[in-house]
Amino acid sequence: MKSISLLGATGSIGQQTLDIVKEHPEEFQVSALSVGKNIEKTKEIIREFKPKLVSVQLEEDALALSKEFTNIDFTFGNKGLVDVATYTDSTYLLNAVLGSVGLESTLAAIRQKKTIAIANKETLVTAGQLVMAEAEKYGAPILPVDSEHSALWQSMVGENRKSISKLILTASGGSFRDQTRDELKDVTVVEALNHPNWSMGAKITIDSATLMNKGLEVIEAAVLYDMSYDDIDVLIHRESIIHSMVEYQDTSVMAQLGTPDMRTPIQYALSYPERLPRSTAQRLDLAKIGQLHFENVDFNRFRCLGFAYEAGRTGGTILTAMNAANEAAVAAFLDGKIKFLEIEDMIERMMQQHNNIQNPDVETILHVDKETRKSVQSMIK
Amino acid sequence: MKSISLLGATGSIGQQTLDIVKEHPEEFQVSALSVGKNIEKTKEIIREFKPKLVSVQLEEDALALSKEFTNIDFTFGNKGLVDVATYTDSTYLLNAVLGSVGLESTLAAIRQKKTIAIANKETLVTAGQLVMAEAEKYGAPILPVDSEHSALWQSMVGENRKSISKLILTASGGSFRDQTRDELKDVTVVEALNHPNWSMGAKITIDSATLMNKGLEVIEAAVLYDMSYDDIDVLIHRESIIHSMVEYQDTSVMAQLGTPDMRTPIQYALSYPERLPRSTAQRLDLAKIGQLHFENVDFNRFRCLGFAYEAGRTGGTILTAMNAANEAAVAAFLDGKIKFLEIEDMIERMMQQHNNIQNPDVETILHVDKETRKSVQSMIK
Repeated sequence: MKSISLLGATGSIGQQTLDIVKEHPEEFQVSALSVGKNIEKTKEIIREFKPKLVSVQLEEDALALSKEFTNIDFTFGNKGLVDVATYTDSTYLLNAVLGSVGLESTLAAIRQKKTIAIANKETLVTAGQLVMAEAEKYGAPILPVDSEHSALWQSMVGENRKSISKLILTASGGSFRDQTRDELKDVTVVEALNHPNWSMGAKITIDSATLMNKGLEVIEAAVLYDMSYDDIDVLIHRESIIHSMVEYQDTSVMAQLGTPDMRTPIQYALSYPERLPRSTAQRLDLAKIGQLHFENVDFNRFRCLGFAYEAGRTGGTILTAMNAANEAAVAAFLDGKIKFLEIEDMIERMMQQHNNIQNPDVETILHVDKETRKSVQSMIK
Repeated sequence: MKSISLLGATGSIGQQTLDIVKEHPEEFQVSALSVGKNIEKTKEIIREFKPKLVSVQLEEDALALSKEFTNIDFTFGNKGLVDVATYTDSTYLLNAVLGSVGLESTLAAIRQKKTIAIANKETLVTAGQLVMAEAEKYGAPILPVDSEHSALWQSMVGENRKSISKLILTASGGSFRDQTRDELKDVTVVEALNHPNWSMGAKITIDSATLMNKGLEVIEAAVLYDMSYDDIDVLIHRESIIHSMVEYQDTSVMAQLGTPDMRTPIQYALSYPERLPRSTAQRLDLAKIGQLHFENVDFNRFRCLGFAYEAGRTGGTILTAMNAANEAAVAAFLDGKIKFLEIEDMIERMMQQHNNIQNPDVETILHVDKETRKSVQSMIK
C-alpha cells in the first residue's frame, strides 16, 4: 500500500489521480490532500477517500470543515500545502497544484525524502536546476506525470541513459493546428478551449493552442533527463497516440503509445516500477485509427515554442519571467481582456526587458514571478 | 571484445553481421564462421576478418582452402557447423544458417553455455520447446536477431514480463499486399522477390509475400516470450517503421521504431545490454515519412498466417511439417515448378495428412522434416 499526499485534488490531474486510487484501493491510499475553494467537492472527496489531513485555501473554510469532520485534521494556505506535502504517513507526493506555490511544497517534500510525482510545471520550469540538485542531495526520486515525460521515461526504462541521442516530444498541435497565423488573430476563448484530443484544465488547453505547453515540456524534459536543448525535438502528431519518443545512438527509437488518457501516466508514476491493470481504460487499436501523421513544427506560426527554447538555453530567472508572463497573459485572455496573439506579445516583451539572474534561489524566483505578473497586469490594465 | 561464432557468413544476415563487426572492430571479433559453397566470397571474408576456424559445406573445398590459408583451421559439413558453433574462443553464436542443420548447432552451442543470437528459424519454429528448455537448463541466453523480435525484446527491457498483455507484430504485407486474392494466381517469381521495404534473401522474401514469414515469427514470439497465441496479434503496417510493439496491462504500448535496416537489430543482439553508435545507419525522420498506416490482416487472403497460428496452437511435429512443407514449396516456386498460391496448397495438404507427435526429440524432428520435404517433392515431380 502506497500512501500519497495529493496537492490539487479538485483540479483535472487531481481528480484523475483520485480515479486511479479508486481503481486500486489495495495499492494506493490518499493520506493527505489539498484543495482550493471548492468546498462542496472537497466534502465529497473527504467522504469517499477518508484522508487524515486536508488543506484548503482559506482559514474560514478550514474552521468550518473541522466542525463537520471532527476526526480529520485541517490546515490552510501556503503553509497548508507544505503540511500536506510533508505529511509523515505519506511516502509519495503527487504535486498537481497550479502556480508557484507548488515549488515550496515540492522542495519541502524532497527534504523529507518523499518520492515526488510532479505535475506542477513551476517546479521544473522555473526552478529546475535547484529542484534537481536538492532531489539528488536528499535521494528523492522525481517522477513525471505528464503523458509526454512519462512516455520518455517509459522509453528509457532499463536503458543506459548515456546512449540517448535525442528526445522527441510529440505535440497534437492544439486547438488551432489547422489555422494560419492570420486566422489566429481573432480566435475566441471558446474556440481555444476546444482541444482535439485531451481533456485538460483551461490554462493548459490554451497553452496547447499557443504551443507554450510544449515549450514548457521541452524545458521540463531538459531538466528531468539532463539533456541539451539541441537534442530535444518537437514533432507535430495530430492523433496524440505516440506520446513521445527517445532516439538512441544505434538509431533505434523507443516510443510509448496509447489512447489519450492522463490516468495511465498518473498511474505509472504511482505504480512504478510495476504496471497495474487499467480496467477503465480503452486499449489502443491502431488498425481502427488507421493512420498516424507527423510533421515538423512551424516556429513562425507558434512563436511561444521558440521563446521556450530561448529561455531554456539562456537559463536563470528568464525561465520564471517567461512562465509568469505566460500565466498572466493566458489568464487575461481567458478573462477576455486580450486577444490570442497578444499572449505571445506579452511574453516577448517580458523576456526582452528581463534582467536575467543565473542560479537564482527560491526567494529570487518567487520575487521575479510576482514582479513579472504585476508587469503584465499593468500592461493590460 | 566479444568473440563470435557466425554460422551462415555469406548469407544476407551473415553479411550484415560482418558489416557490424567492421563498424566496431574494438567490440567484436569473428573467431569462427561457416559458409556454404561460395568459395570466392569466403576467401574475401577470411582475408578481411581473419577467423581462426572456418567451416565449408564440402570436404574438397576445406582441403583446397587449407592449402591456401595455412594458419587457419578448416572443417566441413554438418559436423563443421557444430565445430564452429562450439568453438572454444567464442562466447557468442550468431546462427544465421538456413534450414534444419541450424538446430543441431544451436543445441550444441547451448550446451557449451554460449550466448545465442538466433536468426535460424528452424531452431525456434520446429524445436522451440526443446531449445528453450535446454537454454534454461544450461543458462544460455537466447537473443533474437529478427527486427520484429528484437523490437519486442527492446520493448520489454526493464519491464516485468508478467505485466505484458499482448505482443503486436507488424507486417509490411510483402510484395503483394495490394493484390486481390484473384490477382495472386498468376504472379511471377520476379514480382514476388520485389519486397517493398526490406532487403533480404529470396526464401524469406517469398515468405513475406505469403505472410508465412509473419506466421513463423508469431511462433517464434510465442516460444521466445512464452506467450499464448491468443495474445499475439499481427498488424499490417506498410512502412515497416514500427518494428513491433508490446502492450502492457496498464494499456501502455511500448514500441521500437527505426528505418528498415537489419544491421540495427543484429548489432543490438551483439551489443546488448549496451547500445553502440551506428555510423552507417540512417536516423528516423518521421516528419519526412509523414504518415504511418495500420490495418488488420485478411486471413482469407493470406492463408499461411492462419496455418501458422493453427500449427502453433496444436504444437508438436506439425510445426516441423508446416515449416518443411513451406521450405520445399517455396523452393519449387522459385524454381518455377509451382504457382504462387500452390505454396499454400502444399502446406495445407502436408498439415492435413500429418500424424502429430507431441514433445518430439531432435531425431523425430529431423525425421519429420526430411519426410515432409520428400512428400512435397513427390507431389511436384
